[in-house]
Amino acid sequence: MLIKILGSSAGGGFPQWNCNGRNSADVRKGVAGLSPRTQASVAVSADGRQWVLLNASPDLRQQIGDTPELHPDPKGPPRNSPIKAVVLTNGDVDAVAGLLVMREGQPFTVYATRRVLGILAANNIFDVLAGELVKRVPMTLGEPFAVEGPSGPVGLTVEAFAVPAKVPLYLEDKTAGADFGAQEEDTVGLKVTETASGKHFFYIPGCARVDDRLRARLKDAPLLFFDGTLYTNDEMIAQGLLNKTGERIGHIIMSGEGGSVAQLAPLNIARKVFIHINNSNSALREGAPERKAIESAGWEVGYDGMEVKV
Amino acid sequence: MLIKILGSSAGGGFPQWNCNGRNSADVRKGVAGLSPRTQASVAVSADGRQWVLLNASPDLRQQIGDTPELHPDPKGPPRNSPIKAVVLTNGDVDAVAGLLVMREGQPFTVYATRRVLGILAANNIFDVLAGELVKRVPMTLGEPFAVEGPSGPVGLTVEAFAVPAKVPLYLEDKTAGADFGAQEEDTVGLKVTETASGKHFFYIPGCARVDDRLRARLKDAPLLFFDGTLYTNDEMIAQGLLNKTGERIGHIIMSGEGGSVAQLAPLNIARKVFIHINNSNSALREGAPERKAIESAGWEVGYDGMEVKV
Repeated sequence: MLIKILGSSAGGGFPQWNCNGRNSADVRKGVAGLSPRTQASVAVSADGRQWVLLNASPDLRQQIGDTPELHPDPKGPPRNSPIKAVVLTNGDVDAVAGLLVMREGQPFTVYATRRVLGILAANNIFDVLAGELVKRVPMTLGEPFAVEGPSGPVGLTVEAFAVPAKVPLYLEDKTAGADFGAQEEDTVGLKVTETASGKHFFYIPGCARVDDRLRARLKDAPLLFFDGTLYTNDEMIAQGLLNKTGERIGHIIMSGEGGSVAQLAPLNIARKVFIHINNSNSALREGAPERKAIESAGWEVGYDGMEVKV
Repeated sequence: MLIKILGSSAGGGFPQWNCNGRNSADVRKGVAGLSPRTQASVAVSADGRQWVLLNASPDLRQQIGDTPELHPDPKGPPRNSPIKAVVLTNGDVDAVAGLLVMREGQPFTVYATRRVLGILAANNIFDVLAGELVKRVPMTLGEPFAVEGPSGPVGLTVEAFAVPAKVPLYLEDKTAGADFGAQEEDTVGLKVTETASGKHFFYIPGCARVDDRLRARLKDAPLLFFDGTLYTNDEMIAQGLLNKTGERIGHIIMSGEGGSVAQLAPLNIARKVFIHINNSNSALREGAPERKAIESAGWEVGYDGMEVKV
């Protein structure tokens, strides 16, 4: 099984279009130790020919252009694509807007929870994906399924499971209390298994905290891609970027007692890669103390184009 | 007044993600005489500091990255942008999806017809642009208005006018006859005037045919950016790309008696630039007979990064 990170950044990308914070300003200037990043998405393939996307980021057209494995087969028909399915973990803009890139009469399958499929159905701009070509298939939490493209199974099995998280920003219900109306199916993690070998990994680009259910799931995992949005809870406020904490936006932080590094340390996870990293995160800087801290705790910082063979 | 073409391609861009037609395959291989193109959008500024976008393409994040004039002011606050307003000509994905890139708490103004604002309102994913920051202002056909950003007028006046065209693909009503339910406000052309000098140009990236109203508008125009989607009516069918004619997708063709080159020739337009060029169009190839034909008729083929001073 081959995994390629198409984009490693949180929503907005790095640099972010309207951001003049230290990290965005420096990466725009080409300062050493910082690399541009597009918005989080991963491509997975069992056979190297048929690919499944985990989320469809707004940068998908650029990401496909930068990834030869995702180009049409030059020996194939005038319209063709190796992308056979998209599995969505949530309904946020940075996870679904790339579906709009995938118009143009190409058959593929979209998998998402009923809640997220409901969001797509309520936004008729997604009808640009014609129903007779693009099947929308609901995922039931805790029930593994074989991912199918237009010509059948692609050799991957996926299981979606709920993780603590927030409702998408554009659906926040300010009258619904501290969770803004979040439902269990708003955000999921994915267990992706190579059907033939049983080899697997976890993809969890958005997660508010580590609870007992998640601990049980991730115990002894061979490979994890995990929410690396923020380093500290108030870094966006401190940098003058956005008046919201990590808690408020539904993303766990890397540092501290309740952070991902400490919370996941006891779980004997063989390989841990941060993804969905916000432009405010100091761990984006190679050599920074925050970067050194997570690296010495056994974490890697995912980057656009990173390949992992399982 | 400075005009920059951010993207010169029709929907899908060039190459298109799933296209293995001759043009897309060749530009992917780096064949000489073909250049990659992002989806159609133009940036305009009267003062070189405040910019207005004509349409927000799905490639907007990449386009901003490639255009230093649109970067945040490095001496400004942690969040800032020179983009003060977006004027929409229609509700197609390639004209509006870039609005989703412009989330992140930045104030600006969106101008569109009531019909297109209604499409945005019916798709709550666009609520990611918070109403208190991003004003949505209706344009009335035939009534010029001063474009205003968050701190007032930016020195440009815009007038929207109806052009013959089609309803967006995802809103096609198959029961509504040959025009699929198209309304007059579905697609507009724009007259953009530098308020101080009165200098102006026309931006018409989508147009089904040249009628008498349009002829009267464009007579003696100093500068026109015009729909260059297709060269011949059936080229997408002939190349095996899509089973639709230019007529069916609501775009005039370049060639022939009813085409844009012939129809606009008598109008004494000083400078004519094609934009919104589809990946199937042979005029994309430098040196091709189709390219030579339109160039010898006085047309230019717009390209990403092209600058025009007026």
